[in-house]
Amino acid sequence: MHPLVFQTDFGLVDGAVSAMYGVAYSVNPELKMHDLTHDITPYSIWEASYRLIQTISYWPNETVFVSVVDPGVGSTRKSVVVKTKSGKYIVTPDNGTLTHVLRLDGVVEAREIDEEVNRLPNSGESYTFHGRDVYAYTGARLASGAITFDQVGPEISVDSLVSLPIVEPYLDKDGAHGTIDVLDVRFGSLWTNIPRELFLQTGAKYGDRLNITIENDTRTIYRNIITFAKSFADVYVGEALAYVNSLDCMAVAINQGSFARAYNIGTGNSWRITIEPFKGFF
Amino acid sequence: MHPLVFQTDFGLVDGAVSAMYGVAYSVNPELKMHDLTHDITPYSIWEASYRLIQTISYWPNETVFVSVVDPGVGSTRKSVVVKTKSGKYIVTPDNGTLTHVLRLDGVVEAREIDEEVNRLPNSGESYTFHGRDVYAYTGARLASGAITFDQVGPEISVDSLVSLPIVEPYLDKDGAHGTIDVLDVRFGSLWTNIPRELFLQTGAKYGDRLNITIENDTRTIYRNIITFAKSFADVYVGEALAYVNSLDCMAVAINQGSFARAYNIGTGNSWRITIEPFKGFF
Amino acid sequence: MHPLVFQTDFGLVDGAVSAMYGVAYSVNPELKMHDLTHDITPYSIWEASYRLIQTISYWPNETVFVSVVDPGVGSTRKSVVVKTKSGKYIVTPDNGTLTHVLRLDGVVEAREIDEEVNRLPNSGESYTFHGRDVYAYTGARLASGAITFDQVGPEISVDSLVSLPIVEPYLDKDGAHGTIDVLDVRFGSLWTNIPRELFLQTGAKYGDRLNITIENDTRTIYRNIITFAKSFADVYVGEALAYVNSLDCMAVAINQGSFARAYNIGTGNSWRITIEPFKGFF
Repeated sequence: MHPLVFQTDFGLVDGAVSAMYGVAYSVNPELKMHDLTHDITPYSIWEASYRLIQTISYWPNETVFVSVVDPGVGSTRKSVVVKTKSGKYIVTPDNGTLTHVLRLDGVVEAREIDEEVNRLPNSGESYTFHGRDVYAYTGARLASGAITFDQVGPEISVDSLVSLPIVEPYLDKDGAHGTIDVLDVRFGSLWTNIPRELFLQTGAKYGDRLNITIENDTRTIYRNIITFAKSFADVYVGEALAYVNSLDCMAVAINQGSFARAYNIGTGNSWRITIEPFKGFF
Repeated sequence: MHPLVFQTDFGLVDGAVSAMYGVAYSVNPELKMHDLTHDITPYSIWEASYRLIQTISYWPNETVFVSVVDPGVGSTRKSVVVKTKSGKYIVTPDNGTLTHVLRLDGVVEAREIDEEVNRLPNSGESYTFHGRDVYAYTGARLASGAITFDQVGPEISVDSLVSLPIVEPYLDKDGAHGTIDVLDVRFGSLWTNIPRELFLQTGAKYGDRLNITIENDTRTIYRNIITFAKSFADVYVGEALAYVNSLDCMAVAINQGSFARAYNIGTGNSWRITIEPFKGFF
Repeated sequence: MHPLVFQTDFGLVDGAVSAMYGVAYSVNPELKMHDLTHDITPYSIWEASYRLIQTISYWPNETVFVSVVDPGVGSTRKSVVVKTKSGKYIVTPDNGTLTHVLRLDGVVEAREIDEEVNRLPNSGESYTFHGRDVYAYTGARLASGAITFDQVGPEISVDSLVSLPIVEPYLDKDGAHGTIDVLDVRFGSLWTNIPRELFLQTGAKYGDRLNITIENDTRTIYRNIITFAKSFADVYVGEALAYVNSLDCMAVAINQGSFARAYNIGTGNSWRITIEPFKGFF
């Protein structure tokens, strides 16, 4: 019996998630079921991919994650279960949700769900809620041991899994360059794709001043000098800071304020950030 | 030991729901407790009724649902537990929350809660939180086997249970007629009370064009021709469609948009919809 | 094995809370984990303190609460675990979160968390997420019996625990005086710090008319005569009432409306309320 963890963009205002829980509970009442989040921005495959990599390493091996952000439900997109290098299972439409997992954890084996056997009995007339009828059902059967990973369906090539485009972070003489991957929504912090270890190759140390430049396509949105702080408490309330976030990447915030709202910052590959140690004015 | 599933309009921003969980946990720590939703629109008995029918069939028999949308707390409205035809228990104020269950599942037996025995000890001075003091407590005792259904309190007539007015869907030469019961809030889709099987008697088939008319009282709000699609992926992004929802009723949406917001559509018996196969102009 | 109950200001839109759950689950998969709320207003230590006292008495003894509202993460604020007089454990930054518990329940013993032993292994490079790395981990170890309370770390003086300023309610010839501590957010009711028993010393009885005055600093915001009702059902829909809330304190509301929004009422020590029995005009 392994834990079963759900993620969707369904929200919790109606009965959709509870129907998924009920289906899983009916498969095996001993299952331990938990949530990642159900507030993924509707249709945002990117965010679903990011939240998985943010979370799965804190759960034990063989945890089964069911992630349903599925704008293509009813299309020819495949339904898959993958086993990651670190030993987790992810049940998901194959639409890019595995982008970060493929890159940062790795997938050792992928299988396409055989809906002849792995679909809630008598659910054949509904074409719009695979989250309940296919993904929750299959995830529950896998987590409870009703089926083995082999019994999910035929193996498919890991290389065939869909990945969203990613812009790699890099270092040059101007500093570390990356993209703003996601917001820490509640606190308005920017989470970049620049790993701490890459950034530290610029020679920066905690307490140093950093030059931050944020651009959206061709427009410069923000350019200023802020402190590289170990934590928020190292700067004044209302002061901006750069720090290492809980995923070990560089992040930018305002202590007890919202950086994203203050400067209207968004996320995605068009949002570029450069972080360089400040070397003085001219 | 049966699962215990909670629904309220309390939201999750304060400690109210957690207090209910604590009371139930204190009754029996082995209880499996889950949520339907706590985001029912405040005081919306109709929505509570709808979310129950949306969900209960996916949970196993003898699951105990505790539903607390209770604008009349402290009035003479009864507190009841019913057993549905499909074998579920629902603990609720008798204020219309059972409307859809009575109609679409059926109630085989109803009992009024005897608060002399089925009320949290020492809670007598609080008159405003029966959700915690009566409903969670009684639900937990029933789900855990501390009391049998008979021990809830005296049997009352099923016919005496309160029902909200319902407008029945029907078919005529112009097509299928019904009401907009509820929104799929997150995605802005309209869920009607027209069952798929009733609608199919119009002769419509997947891929056909349908004439949709939406009226609010005497005003026509929307009139257009859209596709009857098996799923969202069958139409363009931004295109409207009619489809069969996860409750096997007709629904209307915009693929990756919000139909409700696009045309300011509301819900309830004053919101009428007609769906007819398109037979050409004139 | 004791229940583990989480409270944070992280929200549920990203993976932060799920990472905490995963850490706790990894400590012991048999743990029963539940939520108080994750929607504490960001950085509001006062609200966190209030929600604890609203809830903990409904959970069994030896329940472990993990409360993480931590604007000072990374500062010298201590990380502590306290045992309350009623027998609950609370794991929290020592920043005022224990204000109401200290005053209304009482703390019998306090210990500072020794992060040498009670910190998630290999989490040393992250300085911003003690909720996951220290509090969830320590709470899970305590709840599961992996450590005893003694093994949390060195005992510290209960008197040294941080408390936020509190304005005491009192009685005089004009009636009962107090502050508006918090809102019942969803329903817009005002929850005061005036206990029912203190208020009843004014001689008021259910059904009486009460003079309500609400002041913010030097400004009078509201002054009117309303009914002291046993419950909402005793007044008309849309009518204001005073009542005893589920914490046995005086509260003010509009039946099926929002008092807080109607009169723009806020919370905190600058929001004073006086409730006096109405003795007629002049």
